[in-house]
Amino acid sequence: MNELDPLLSGVRLAVFDFDGVFTDNHVWVNERGEEAVRCCRADGFGLHRLREVGVESVILTTEAVPIVAVRARKLEVECRHGLADKLAALREEAERRGVSLEETAFLGNDINDAACLEAVGLAVVPADAWPEVAGLARWTLERRGGEGCVREFCDAVWAAQR
Amino acid sequence: MNELDPLLSGVRLAVFDFDGVFTDNHVWVNERGEEAVRCCRADGFGLHRLREVGVESVILTTEAVPIVAVRARKLEVECRHGLADKLAALREEAERRGVSLEETAFLGNDINDAACLEAVGLAVVPADAWPEVAGLARWTLERRGGEGCVREFCDAVWAAQR
Amino acid sequence: MNELDPLLSGVRLAVFDFDGVFTDNHVWVNERGEEAVRCCRADGFGLHRLREVGVESVILTTEAVPIVAVRARKLEVECRHGLADKLAALREEAERRGVSLEETAFLGNDINDAACLEAVGLAVVPADAWPEVAGLARWTLERRGGEGCVREFCDAVWAAQR
Amino acid sequence: MNELDPLLSGVRLAVFDFDGVFTDNHVWVNERGEEAVRCCRADGFGLHRLREVGVESVILTTEAVPIVAVRARKLEVECRHGLADKLAALREEAERRGVSLEETAFLGNDINDAACLEAVGLAVVPADAWPEVAGLARWTLERRGGEGCVREFCDAVWAAQR
Repeated sequence: MNELDPLLSGVRLAVFDFDGVFTDNHVWVNERGEEAVRCCRADGFGLHRLREVGVESVILTTEAVPIVAVRARKLEVECRHGLADKLAALREEAERRGVSLEETAFLGNDINDAACLEAVGLAVVPADAWPEVAGLARWTLERRGGEGCVREFCDAVWAAQR
Repeated sequence: MNELDPLLSGVRLAVFDFDGVFTDNHVWVNERGEEAVRCCRADGFGLHRLREVGVESVILTTEAVPIVAVRARKLEVECRHGLADKLAALREEAERRGVSLEETAFLGNDINDAACLEAVGLAVVPADAWPEVAGLARWTLERRGGEGCVREFCDAVWAAQR
Repeated sequence: MNELDPLLSGVRLAVFDFDGVFTDNHVWVNERGEEAVRCCRADGFGLHRLREVGVESVILTTEAVPIVAVRARKLEVECRHGLADKLAALREEAERRGVSLEETAFLGNDINDAACLEAVGLAVVPADAWPEVAGLARWTLERRGGEGCVREFCDAVWAAQR
Repeated sequence: MNELDPLLSGVRLAVFDFDGVFTDNHVWVNERGEEAVRCCRADGFGLHRLREVGVESVILTTEAVPIVAVRARKLEVECRHGLADKLAALREEAERRGVSLEETAFLGNDINDAACLEAVGLAVVPADAWPEVAGLARWTLERRGGEGCVREFCDAVWAAQR
């Protein structure tokens, strides 16, 4: 990870997709149309470490369901959902914090993340990102979505900045 | 996939089984008899791409539970459930659209899909289809049911027709 | 499976444990103490085939929760749950059908199934049975609990008897 | 496991983390913020065997959600949740039973278990413990969290003490 070190040291804002990043990209659906997703407890420790070194986090997602809001609240991370244009939201989040896109990391897994991955200084994908976007990443994590990939990313930023 | 190209280019209607295709062929059952299934978020992007190139989609299932209807509504795909005779339904769906069975693709995974797989121009199974029907397929997907096999199929049709 | 053929041909009653056989031996628990289990849709086709060749089925389980009753009703299989002594129940089920233990198959996965596995003519375990009982089996299935092991067993009996 | 034998024979109290030990370290979250976790039925037999040989068990967890209490009640194991300081609770549990930390085993999987793993006579981690704490273990189980690692641990203590 040597060549990543300067990028990890420079991250000031971490932006995350939700499905396929905090989850394994699956959804459980019941007869009443209620949805549930599967998250990894280990990710919470990672986000805590980002806060420790002063890196802010935000979750941006296309999905309109409220699960992401519920989960973000528990993880104490800001989130915006139901987004038609993730890149516009990412630019707004960076701008209102006075952070450049170069100092921003984005972690996403599918084609609706392509524009964000291309825009930021540190483009990151989980091990099981969809092939069309895997090639856009500067860093491919060893862990899969929902299997601690957020923790892996956060731990590396924390180790570079603490 | 070279020899599949003419078939992919000619598909005008895509017909899907539900369990074992959109799901991993499992069902979660609770004490009240309520059921839930596990679907893959990636499949939605694939169905969207089919619409982009003008290929219609329909889900046909033997199961009578309303989960499939709930999921189909979210995916914006037509569905018919509780079918005793899937092949009859498949013929009706093709006929009312003026599409021949040769121009129809069917994606199914178990013995109640055998007749449909034998009837269509492009018979497709997920990687983990039950052995008795796997041999009926013209194309065996790399992905398993509920693990993005619908997306894999749709992406290939889309790539051939866009 | 050649040496199993006479045993498969002679089965008249199939007795199943539930957890670890129809399920992956896991249970989902929520904050209200409600439980859910994960079953395989493929197993239903197998039980249907047993009925086709006149082999009766019954599920016996130590667990007292009603999920097994709910699932058994959907699968149209008799079941008895909350059993302190599975072997006594197995003997009763065989006796009231006039079936000998030699003509009975039992499929179980853990130590509370040991006595039943030792008592029947055809002792069967899923691929992931607990090591202490795996050695008691005459036949170790290729599939794991909740991954179609019931289907694999039923298909073999059906193929030997149809 | 030869060198572990004296340690296994000497255990008088077994202390367990919950998430990542009794579960696979994942949580299912629905739209109402309700959580569910996935446990392994095999673990119950193990805890029963610990009681058989007179080894007491207690679950300690940082998480404040009531699922652990619900599960512990079913497993008939004491539990304390919402703990800011697990090590202090571990010391209290050992002291009020008159058991030394040398005679205590602790099974945990992540960084909030580090202090407990360092304090006890027998430090144990599941196969998929987080790398930062895996190195603190005297014994790394073959099974993963939620996949029967508790059973594996209990069976070994039981075999050494019965």
